[in-house]
Amino acid sequence: MTEASHPLAIIVLAAGKGTRMKSDTHKVLHPIAGRPMLEHLLASVGELSPERQVVVAGHGRDQLEKALAGRAAMALQEPQLGTAHAVQQAEGALAGFEGDVLVLYGDVPFVSADTMRAMIGRLHGADQPAVVVLGFEPDDALAYGRIIAKDGAIAKMVEFKDASAEERACRLCNSGLMAARASDLFALLARVGNDNAQGEYYLPDIVNIALADGRPCAVVVTADADEVAGINSRAELAEAEGRWQKRRRLQAMDDGVTLVAPETVWFSWDTKLGRDVVVEPNVVFGPGVEVADHVTIHAFSHLAGAKVASQADIGPYARLRPGADIREKARVGNFVEIKNAVMGVGAKANHLTYVGDAQVGAGANLGAGTITCNYDGYFKHKTIIGERAFIGSNSALIAPVKIGADAIVAAGSAVSRDVGDGELRLVRAEQLVKPGWADQFHDIMRRRKAEKKG
Amino acid sequence: MTEASHPLAIIVLAAGKGTRMKSDTHKVLHPIAGRPMLEHLLASVGELSPERQVVVAGHGRDQLEKALAGRAAMALQEPQLGTAHAVQQAEGALAGFEGDVLVLYGDVPFVSADTMRAMIGRLHGADQPAVVVLGFEPDDALAYGRIIAKDGAIAKMVEFKDASAEERACRLCNSGLMAARASDLFALLARVGNDNAQGEYYLPDIVNIALADGRPCAVVVTADADEVAGINSRAELAEAEGRWQKRRRLQAMDDGVTLVAPETVWFSWDTKLGRDVVVEPNVVFGPGVEVADHVTIHAFSHLAGAKVASQADIGPYARLRPGADIREKARVGNFVEIKNAVMGVGAKANHLTYVGDAQVGAGANLGAGTITCNYDGYFKHKTIIGERAFIGSNSALIAPVKIGADAIVAAGSAVSRDVGDGELRLVRAEQLVKPGWADQFHDIMRRRKAEKKG
Amino acid sequence: MTEASHPLAIIVLAAGKGTRMKSDTHKVLHPIAGRPMLEHLLASVGELSPERQVVVAGHGRDQLEKALAGRAAMALQEPQLGTAHAVQQAEGALAGFEGDVLVLYGDVPFVSADTMRAMIGRLHGADQPAVVVLGFEPDDALAYGRIIAKDGAIAKMVEFKDASAEERACRLCNSGLMAARASDLFALLARVGNDNAQGEYYLPDIVNIALADGRPCAVVVTADADEVAGINSRAELAEAEGRWQKRRRLQAMDDGVTLVAPETVWFSWDTKLGRDVVVEPNVVFGPGVEVADHVTIHAFSHLAGAKVASQADIGPYARLRPGADIREKARVGNFVEIKNAVMGVGAKANHLTYVGDAQVGAGANLGAGTITCNYDGYFKHKTIIGERAFIGSNSALIAPVKIGADAIVAAGSAVSRDVGDGELRLVRAEQLVKPGWADQFHDIMRRRKAEKKG
Repeated sequence: MTEASHPLAIIVLAAGKGTRMKSDTHKVLHPIAGRPMLEHLLASVGELSPERQVVVAGHGRDQLEKALAGRAAMALQEPQLGTAHAVQQAEGALAGFEGDVLVLYGDVPFVSADTMRAMIGRLHGADQPAVVVLGFEPDDALAYGRIIAKDGAIAKMVEFKDASAEERACRLCNSGLMAARASDLFALLARVGNDNAQGEYYLPDIVNIALADGRPCAVVVTADADEVAGINSRAELAEAEGRWQKRRRLQAMDDGVTLVAPETVWFSWDTKLGRDVVVEPNVVFGPGVEVADHVTIHAFSHLAGAKVASQADIGPYARLRPGADIREKARVGNFVEIKNAVMGVGAKANHLTYVGDAQVGAGANLGAGTITCNYDGYFKHKTIIGERAFIGSNSALIAPVKIGADAIVAAGSAVSRDVGDGELRLVRAEQLVKPGWADQFHDIMRRRKAEKKG
Repeated sequence: MTEASHPLAIIVLAAGKGTRMKSDTHKVLHPIAGRPMLEHLLASVGELSPERQVVVAGHGRDQLEKALAGRAAMALQEPQLGTAHAVQQAEGALAGFEGDVLVLYGDVPFVSADTMRAMIGRLHGADQPAVVVLGFEPDDALAYGRIIAKDGAIAKMVEFKDASAEERACRLCNSGLMAARASDLFALLARVGNDNAQGEYYLPDIVNIALADGRPCAVVVTADADEVAGINSRAELAEAEGRWQKRRRLQAMDDGVTLVAPETVWFSWDTKLGRDVVVEPNVVFGPGVEVADHVTIHAFSHLAGAKVASQADIGPYARLRPGADIREKARVGNFVEIKNAVMGVGAKANHLTYVGDAQVGAGANLGAGTITCNYDGYFKHKTIIGERAFIGSNSALIAPVKIGADAIVAAGSAVSRDVGDGELRLVRAEQLVKPGWADQFHDIMRRRKAEKKG
Repeated sequence: MTEASHPLAIIVLAAGKGTRMKSDTHKVLHPIAGRPMLEHLLASVGELSPERQVVVAGHGRDQLEKALAGRAAMALQEPQLGTAHAVQQAEGALAGFEGDVLVLYGDVPFVSADTMRAMIGRLHGADQPAVVVLGFEPDDALAYGRIIAKDGAIAKMVEFKDASAEERACRLCNSGLMAARASDLFALLARVGNDNAQGEYYLPDIVNIALADGRPCAVVVTADADEVAGINSRAELAEAEGRWQKRRRLQAMDDGVTLVAPETVWFSWDTKLGRDVVVEPNVVFGPGVEVADHVTIHAFSHLAGAKVASQADIGPYARLRPGADIREKARVGNFVEIKNAVMGVGAKANHLTYVGDAQVGAGANLGAGTITCNYDGYFKHKTIIGERAFIGSNSALIAPVKIGADAIVAAGSAVSRDVGDGELRLVRAEQLVKPGWADQFHDIMRRRKAEKKG
């Protein structure tokens, strides 16, 4: 427990059906910036080092269980009778826990650790509130539940449909996120009723019950309404992605990266870019990319799981797949795919090339159309190319195979046996010449074509 | 006549010069979402099952005639003396027609069938108006002609330049679209004069003439001002395209498609996408694409005239051309082009491959750099690849040719004769080894290079 | 001196550290639309035909010197003691110059020649102002220095931090750009002190000194606040790029170019496009591109240093590199790279091809996977392909090599010797058939695979 003197437990509600997503994938597992929503949330939660974590699941429980892989306890809400009922389901998993509880939502993944800290801090304020609610002030308060509060002390929680005109005029809205001591939380939950139109147990009711007991409840207001935006549809997913990308692009530029067209560059959650990296328009970073200083990534490039060392030159139309390890000043050109392969210092693969499961020595040059044949239909095999080796265009290197240092493979060769250092390997048939053949062929074919049309 | 008890005729005005487009292509034939403007309009019109359709042409008449291919009558306006004059030219083509007439514009292609229905419905309202005008309320009314009306009854139509300050303050603008009974329409048109600065015959004058006769005229106001936006320049064309795409993207997301970056995905008018399809950034759909459920389309892919079955995986940098038929769980990878070819269930073409005029069996694997040589300069020929066949990298399959089931083609082979089931085909020359040759070559060439520089 | 009767000198301040760029490249050398900021500015300046040009450098002086290559005199400001001090450093380089001086900034590159002319014109107005300042009225005046002026006559220049509430309410801001006669300028600069919090010599002080002398000073107000936007960070660089591109796209559309998705097309400063050119989404133009009328450039294409003649068809996924010269009706298809090569009238390279250092005759057809092997590791060599020649798929043409007119190269051939007109060249080994081999192989490999897993 590094964060505070109070042990912390997290309850993440993720039992909703997510109907509006129209998806077979659990809502909270849809990715943003290449990482499932739930993982974004758990990463922020992780900064607070909670003692316990419980995810309340319902629909799609198996998917959640698999995704969590034991990193959090699971509680089942079945049937779904409202948010208060959902939080109650975590009580068993938190048996014996005495400390603070933070109630979060799997589909509200971008609440910052700082905001969570502020909620917990407020819970231990001088007035010792029973419940702390996270409020936000959206541009358009719509039909959100309202928090009637003064100086941070809540007077009343009210659903929009039950709110008076005056209450509706209040722009302070309930995000749904709450903090409370475990003992308070479950005691209050036990008293929530379902006497409403939907017959549901609503979490905000615990605030009104506590207030009725004469206990203070507090609101912490986030300055960034976007962090509590819920994601309930693909459109909201795309909006959240867009907001994330926009922030990330500004960060990259602040760090000394040139984005010629920022709005066309798509980062993953873990993309790392050095200083004086230049990214041209239309570049996509999948997960696991590290790019060092002074690298240029030309337009239409796609990188994932790749490491690019300084002064390398990538693209346009370069595809770097997992395990691509591009060393200093190496060059990967257009329509070139690199997978699980080292491109040594200053090595070049400029055009129409596939380098898979390979080690390419420093200064080697792979001609246009070079293909490493790494797969025999059953196993993958390795190609090793020596320093300064020259692979002629349109060659096939049939792995496993080694090409020596300074060796030359003649253009158009299919090389299936090792080539020694400084050796030439030529795999080429006799050039058959048939003078006049083409002219005759043209005559015949033109006639046939004319017949077909005629 | 499915729509109403009144027969309907449509007049589409398309005689304008379209000067601002600066194009040799007729303005109404410029495409939006891969389909000429005029076709968008005719498709909406089609929902009303009109008895007659007349297109009034002037400049570029031949292009229009070719595009319509007899689907509508053509009337010629030559010279162009104003909109009233244009509509009059349709009188001959509508000889004998007694029913409702709707006047539309070829460069106002996105008026919805519902709006058209509302206009015709209003024409048969209790007060039996002589003319129904479609009005709209733009954010900025600019220099549009104004409709002075009360409770849907028109008091006066006024051109902006003739409008008083009070009339200009009115935001209800004339879209130019009108509905009238054929008999009324042509009778009123005959009375329109050209006593104005331009010496033109203006269509809105029929309203003022009818009003002067003491006949009521009505306005129907569209809630969506965008549907009457005219397209007069390439910039307006791009704006209309943008609005169309925006709506289509929202529709896709509503239907359960993930668009990671909606603003970078370009649909055609007839694109069909299943549920849980994921579309990464920068994907272009040409016309005629159908994608089934659970397909992922990776970044930088371009599809047209292609069918993709469920759980297939496409791209990045995949080009699917007309006739591509990608079956369940098949995989089309980077820098791969498929044209007029079936990729069987689970078949793979992962890299740098061209598959044209081919049938690839289920589970077959095409190595990197596989090329079907389908063209001999005169005719196209077919390649048939059996189930589970393995085509080694960098192979050329010279059609017409059949590769049997479970057959193997060795890497780097150019195969011009059929390969039987379970056969190996190897087309490869002797590997010539010249030890030390490369080293000597390097010595000589380095010297030459030094001499050149020296 | 073509512009006016007064000789003109330009001083460009470029001594700042550009710390916020976080770059090893000098701030004013960062490109916008493919051209360094400083070059944009010098191009506008060039329209005024100045007699002298001085660039005041500090940090990164060597980079500037190299970039300017003698086109302007250099003055050194070391240390940097403020803008007035910077301008003073140009005095030596302007020794003997008697005429007008315009003070510009390397990081304010988009001031138009018209605005510069207006400043100089004002300097010679009837009231003969000592200094002319360029003012602008931003939407948000922020902390810019204010110009207190009436009817174009300046009453006072005031730094924001020293400004009264009333002065701050004034929205007329100081861009920093000034014009003065050389004699006035340096006399005034000599009287500027550094009695302020930063201990710097501020250029606007020359205005206040002149006013105290009873000499009039004037403000010229630009209608386009964007033209004086300074570029101090990568984010501002991207914004300037975005504004430039937006203007350029509108210009292209006005000129009769269809941009299906304008916001996805990236121009260079010198891109030239003809009428009825269609540019699909996601196209990048590097410097030096000229495209004639009626060319279609399909999605995901990348052009630089290329010439495309009328009715040619480019892309999708076409890469045209410097020296690509695509003639009438030629076709460059997907995953095709053309470098330093002529594609003759109607010639085709439709798929997966690299054409480098080549001349392709009219009507020639390069099959999928054709590679010109132009590089031997030391020198580049030329490939010449005759008219109507047919290069079979997956062929390697090993330069230097000539293919005759109407000649045919069989698919899969590696051609290293010239092919005569109308000749067939076939370079293909015997087809070895091993019946049953593949079946046996499959048996063995399946067993091995099972063992590995077992």
